[in-house]
Amino acid sequence: MFALKKTNQLNSFVRWYSTIKNTTLPPKGFKTGTYACGLKKSGNKDICVIYSEKECNVAAVFTENKVKAAPVLLSKSLIDQHHNSGFQSLIINSGGANACTGQEGDRNAATMSNLSASLLKAKQPSLVMSTGIIGQQLDMTKVEKGIQMATSQLKDNDWVSAAEAIMTTDHVHKLVQKTIELDGKQVNISGICKGAGMIHPNMATMLCTICTDANISAECLKPALKHSIQYSFNSISVDGDMSTNDTVCVFANGMAGNKMITDQKSQDFLLLQQALRETATELAQMIVKDAEGASKFISVVVLNAENEAAGKVVANSICTSSLVKTAIYGEDANWGRVLAAAGASGADIIPSKISMWFSHGDGKDIGIGKKNDPSICMQFLKDGQPTPKNEDRAAQLLANKDIGIIVDLNQGTANYSMWTSDLTVEYVKANSHYRT
Amino acid sequence: MFALKKTNQLNSFVRWYSTIKNTTLPPKGFKTGTYACGLKKSGNKDICVIYSEKECNVAAVFTENKVKAAPVLLSKSLIDQHHNSGFQSLIINSGGANACTGQEGDRNAATMSNLSASLLKAKQPSLVMSTGIIGQQLDMTKVEKGIQMATSQLKDNDWVSAAEAIMTTDHVHKLVQKTIELDGKQVNISGICKGAGMIHPNMATMLCTICTDANISAECLKPALKHSIQYSFNSISVDGDMSTNDTVCVFANGMAGNKMITDQKSQDFLLLQQALRETATELAQMIVKDAEGASKFISVVVLNAENEAAGKVVANSICTSSLVKTAIYGEDANWGRVLAAAGASGADIIPSKISMWFSHGDGKDIGIGKKNDPSICMQFLKDGQPTPKNEDRAAQLLANKDIGIIVDLNQGTANYSMWTSDLTVEYVKANSHYRT
Repeated sequence: MFALKKTNQLNSFVRWYSTIKNTTLPPKGFKTGTYACGLKKSGNKDICVIYSEKECNVAAVFTENKVKAAPVLLSKSLIDQHHNSGFQSLIINSGGANACTGQEGDRNAATMSNLSASLLKAKQPSLVMSTGIIGQQLDMTKVEKGIQMATSQLKDNDWVSAAEAIMTTDHVHKLVQKTIELDGKQVNISGICKGAGMIHPNMATMLCTICTDANISAECLKPALKHSIQYSFNSISVDGDMSTNDTVCVFANGMAGNKMITDQKSQDFLLLQQALRETATELAQMIVKDAEGASKFISVVVLNAENEAAGKVVANSICTSSLVKTAIYGEDANWGRVLAAAGASGADIIPSKISMWFSHGDGKDIGIGKKNDPSICMQFLKDGQPTPKNEDRAAQLLANKDIGIIVDLNQGTANYSMWTSDLTVEYVKANSHYRT
Repeated sequence: MFALKKTNQLNSFVRWYSTIKNTTLPPKGFKTGTYACGLKKSGNKDICVIYSEKECNVAAVFTENKVKAAPVLLSKSLIDQHHNSGFQSLIINSGGANACTGQEGDRNAATMSNLSASLLKAKQPSLVMSTGIIGQQLDMTKVEKGIQMATSQLKDNDWVSAAEAIMTTDHVHKLVQKTIELDGKQVNISGICKGAGMIHPNMATMLCTICTDANISAECLKPALKHSIQYSFNSISVDGDMSTNDTVCVFANGMAGNKMITDQKSQDFLLLQQALRETATELAQMIVKDAEGASKFISVVVLNAENEAAGKVVANSICTSSLVKTAIYGEDANWGRVLAAAGASGADIIPSKISMWFSHGDGKDIGIGKKNDPSICMQFLKDGQPTPKNEDRAAQLLANKDIGIIVDLNQGTANYSMWTSDLTVEYVKANSHYRT
């Protein structure tokens, strides 16, 4: 929320906040289909198709890893080729990442795209996402059967099944639905994602698809997604690694019937953008909370940075510090490690100005204002020096599942929040397939 | 070793390599004194003084953390003020970092500097290093007593005691001694350091002091140290965190009697620089091997990068990847995680050109040439795609304590090596003071 101040959106905040609601009503015109084709040893669903009756404007953000999976390269190329519009379908498989698979992998991704589009009678090839093991070819006999079955059993908006079919090491499916009113019309958003931790034998992937019936131009959808990701998926860290397959994609089919959003400064744009951002933020936080081996959800709130970039650099350094993450696991209010991580971030901080608090909260609204509330916050550092503290009270505070680390840099007016999990014995065991 | 190629030192390498030897003879003219003044609960030695009969030229590199301990700020200022020369003494305490201690901390560091110099009748204030708990004032009654006792019991070159007195969570003391011949004179080097892991209640520190009787100008000593650190202490990673107190300092008193080195292109300069680098590299590797909770020593060798900077970025990304480090702990030859870490490094690598091997070795000479030796190396990736492999053989290879990860980028001619430890259950327990 805090970064709103820097984007001059604060004035509008109160108005739109009250108009963004959770909903059980899905966006109009979308259908989903799932199937268990046998890519997963568990026999769970591994194919998911998402179809829109009407052609959609689309925006997507892909992994910045130089090693990109075949479906990432294909989807990126399709979106560029079709100028972010005209898409009706997305095909996703779990149980195989189709990464490091060479030309055969490229051909298989293309087959998934063309076969699903053809069966759905879509006007353009489908976008494609894959997640699972790196370096193995997909069993295309199974995948093709899966696509045939999933596309032949489409249901109206069965988002729970869709969210289940893309899971890999996730413990729970991840679905967020929001509704807003634009131009007198009800606009709905459904977002699904998968992420969790990294596990045998290679690495997992963060995939997210957000579908909305909002009417918005492709030119406006891109910056809205970029903004949403900046403060959600790009503001979480589980273990600092970036996969070969990470993809976030938004489809907008316009069936809500609102007047098309074409102005990035309009209230309607800002409200839709905020709704997408809140959808993405809740999904991203679900990934952190479900992270392999995590026992704590940690919100890092950097206040009064010189600028937003500096705030993010400091927050990121704290979120990726193994020492901070193990300390929180051990329920140790180790302000020294937090301060050292801030100092090592590269940001031009001034140690003698820094104050710090540990808190507990719900991961959303700790920070501004709350640092003066002794019922949930405890100060550990004032102007760069430790404050006297009650050890029993500190132990009580750190025993919570939701831990806040609030760092006031006292240098400017920019704030930045990030979320991470603790580094636990269970994380190491899960990621090393530790033999007991 | 590999970076020599880029600094045009390869031709000279063979000559000087044969002339750098380990030795038990210490540098001339140095004395050390130690004492247990009671800063450590264990009652172990916690005060170390190093004294040189003759005034020394000095070079030092300090933590880049914005949060710097009082002794770091003082030593940096003293060295600047006296233009890197004229120093005769160094006072070190373990059992307290004197960081985040405000003006009282500044005064205490100055007292340590002045008191020790005065007792030793040194012409300039002593340099100061501290390591231990952050945010607590030193008990100066104990420290002053310790300085009085240590300076009154000086011994010729008792480097083992000195190395012991600076230990915190280290399991073993760390001492390396090298000898070379310069200008027909025997020149000796003694280096001590401490590091290990990070442990309750705050963070540990990397301290290193190298003393030599080489005759070298202050202007030449600075680049020689910088070079040495680049390929040693700046090429290791235990958990990616940087402390408030990290310091590496070299004292050169000239008592070997060689003609003063004043030319950075001279053979003598290059030989001394290489000897300092080897001393620093062995000390740095000792820190990794002794890291809290480590069970494996991992050498990451990046071959044929576009340039050295790119090679280092890739090596660093692999060395700091929690997923790579947990995989090695689990003895899992997880090439996918290594490739993903390389891809996420930010370097402009070309995935389809990359080949990769796992190996075992002594952490020094794996890499160039050895990747074709099937007795210690096994290929997992060729031109970006996985190679067929024998799982039993892979398991055998990964069961070694010393693991090499060799990544050939096939883009240029620059090579870079870094060293790290695995991420283990014991690491997390040690750093969270896990309660069993």
